[in-house]
Amino acid sequence: MFKSAQVYHLARTPQGLPKTEDFELREVALNPLQTDEVLVQNLYLSVDPYMRGRMRFMAPGSPLFGAAVGQVLDSKSAALPEGTFVLSGRSWHSHFVDNAEALTPLDPNLAPLPSYLGVMGMPGLTAWGGLLITGEYQSGESLFVSAASGAVGNLVGQIAKLQGGHVIGSAGSDDKVESLIKDYGFDHAFNYKTANALAELRSSAPEGIDVYFENVGGAQLEAALTHMRPYGRIPICGMIAHYNDDGEPTPGPRNLTETIYKFITLKGFVVSAFESERKKFQTQMAAWIQSGDIRYEETVYEGLESTPDAFIALFNGGNKGKMLVKLEP
Amino acid sequence: MFKSAQVYHLARTPQGLPKTEDFELREVALNPLQTDEVLVQNLYLSVDPYMRGRMRFMAPGSPLFGAAVGQVLDSKSAALPEGTFVLSGRSWHSHFVDNAEALTPLDPNLAPLPSYLGVMGMPGLTAWGGLLITGEYQSGESLFVSAASGAVGNLVGQIAKLQGGHVIGSAGSDDKVESLIKDYGFDHAFNYKTANALAELRSSAPEGIDVYFENVGGAQLEAALTHMRPYGRIPICGMIAHYNDDGEPTPGPRNLTETIYKFITLKGFVVSAFESERKKFQTQMAAWIQSGDIRYEETVYEGLESTPDAFIALFNGGNKGKMLVKLEP
Repeated sequence: MFKSAQVYHLARTPQGLPKTEDFELREVALNPLQTDEVLVQNLYLSVDPYMRGRMRFMAPGSPLFGAAVGQVLDSKSAALPEGTFVLSGRSWHSHFVDNAEALTPLDPNLAPLPSYLGVMGMPGLTAWGGLLITGEYQSGESLFVSAASGAVGNLVGQIAKLQGGHVIGSAGSDDKVESLIKDYGFDHAFNYKTANALAELRSSAPEGIDVYFENVGGAQLEAALTHMRPYGRIPICGMIAHYNDDGEPTPGPRNLTETIYKFITLKGFVVSAFESERKKFQTQMAAWIQSGDIRYEETVYEGLESTPDAFIALFNGGNKGKMLVKLEP
Repeated sequence: MFKSAQVYHLARTPQGLPKTEDFELREVALNPLQTDEVLVQNLYLSVDPYMRGRMRFMAPGSPLFGAAVGQVLDSKSAALPEGTFVLSGRSWHSHFVDNAEALTPLDPNLAPLPSYLGVMGMPGLTAWGGLLITGEYQSGESLFVSAASGAVGNLVGQIAKLQGGHVIGSAGSDDKVESLIKDYGFDHAFNYKTANALAELRSSAPEGIDVYFENVGGAQLEAALTHMRPYGRIPICGMIAHYNDDGEPTPGPRNLTETIYKFITLKGFVVSAFESERKKFQTQMAAWIQSGDIRYEETVYEGLESTPDAFIALFNGGNKGKMLVKLEP
C-alpha cells in the first residue's frame, strides 16, 4: 500500500538555536513486510528538548527519531494486528516498517492516545521518577521547579501538590506564571526573566527549599542552592539554558560550596532509570487523570512539515505543556 | 595556679587570603574552677582550612577555636582527674576552663597524642566517612582526589589503595607529586599548576573515574565531571579554591550537564555526618597505623605565637599532611 515514507533528516549540526535549515524532509523507500514486521502510520509525533543534545553527536544525513504514537496499517505479526495503536521510537517519520518487538501496544481506553507521549509517557515518568525516586521528595516538603510550564515541570509541581507540598514554579512569561497558580494550583510562581529568583524563593518559602527540580541551570540553580534547606536534594533533569551554548559554555553556579555545610545532594538522571517502575507509574497516573487530580495541556502543531518549527519553538517558550505534532491519518 | 590564658581573637574579618593582622593575641582571665570543671593546658593546636569559612560569620573580637589536644592541670571532675589527656574544641588558646562533659579523654597508648588532631581525629574521620559513606566507594574503583597532600586528601588516597583501588592525586608542587607516588603508593599524581587535569585523568584512568573526592573546586572539578564514569560519585568535602574569593565568586563548573546522562551524584558533607561511626573508624584507623598500612605526616609550628602563620600557610601550600602548632607545656 505505502511504498515510501516522508522522514526528516539532520541536514547539518545545529549551531546555537536550531534553525529550519538544519532539517531536511526526504522520501524514503519502505521495504516489503517480513515475518513479524508491521507497517505503521504515525498519528502523533513528540518533539523534546533532549533531542537538541543528541544532535551534537548525530552525523548529518541521519534520520531523526524520538517517541511517536501510530496505528498499524499492515501486519505480518500476530502480536500487533492491523488497527493496533502503538508507541514507537520513530518520531519525525510519517510511516515506518519495524519488527513488532520494537513497539509497545497502547490501550486507548486507559488514557487518550496523545497522552502516551506526555503525561502517561516519557515526560510523565521523568517527572514522577525524578521527583519521588531521584529527588526522594517527602510529603509536605517545599519544592521549587524551574521550566514549570513545560511538560515535565508542570507535572512535577502537580505531583508535589498531591503530596501536600508547598510548590513554587518559574516560567518565562507572565501568562504562564498566572496559569501555574490559577490552573495548576501552584502556591507561588514567578517570571524568571523579570523577577529575582532568590527574592521570590525567600518570600514564598521563608524556611527554605527541600527539593529543587532542575530543568534549566544558570541563575535559578544558584538561587536554589543559596536558599536550600539542610539535606536538600536537587534532581538534575535538564539544563535547557545550556543546551544551545556555542563555543564557550555558560559558567556553572558560583556557590557550590553551599552543598557542604547543608549536606545538599545534586543528582543527574534520565528517564531510563525508572523503567522498572513504569507499570506502577502508569497505573497511578491513569487514576490521577481520570479523577481530575492531574491536569495537562498539549500544544499541537499540525502536519509533518511543521515538525522542525515545533521543535525550534521549544527553545523560544512557544509551548504550554507537551509539544506534539499531529499527522493527518 | 593559672589565673589567665593567652587566646587569639579575630581582629577583623579577613579579606581574601588571611593576614597576620587579622588576628590578635589577648590575655584572658580564667575563672576559678566550679564543680565538674577542669583547667586544661593545651599541648597541640589544630589549624584547618574550614576555619576560613567560619571567619566570614564571626564578629570581630570573638575568640577563635577548633580542635586541640591538652592535659588536665587541675580538676573538680571525678571523670577527668589531673593528668588526663583530652580532646577539646579550644584551639588558638593556651589554657582554658571547661566543663568535663565538653571534653573527650584520649588514650595515648592507642595512638600518638597529636594524631588525634589528624589521622585519628577530624581529618581522618572526614577522609574515611567521605570516601566510604558519602562517596560509597567500592573496592577496586578508580579514584581521583585533589589536594592529595593535605591531611584529608592524603588519607583518602591511602584508604582507597587499601581497598585495591586505582588512585590518582593532584597537588601544588612537583615535590608533593613525587611524594604521593613514592611515599604513599598513589598510582599517579600530577601538579595541578602545570599539568592539564583532564589529560592526566585520561592517560592514567582511560576508562574513567568512579569517585572524585572534591577538595578544591574550579578546573579540577570540571575535568573530573568530564572524565567521570556512569554512576560516578563526587563527595564534596571542600572547595579551597573558593574560600578566599573576594567580591565576585569564582564561577562553578561549566559542564554540570555531564551529570545527567551519566547519573552522577554530587553530595556535600561535613564530618559531623559520621559521628555515629567514630568508634568503628578509630578502631580501624588505629589498626592501620599500627600495621604501617596508613602513613601520615605532620607539619608542626612551634609556640602559640606561630598559630596565625600556621593557619595562613594552609592557603600557600606550606604544609605536608596535618598542620599543627605545638605548645611548650
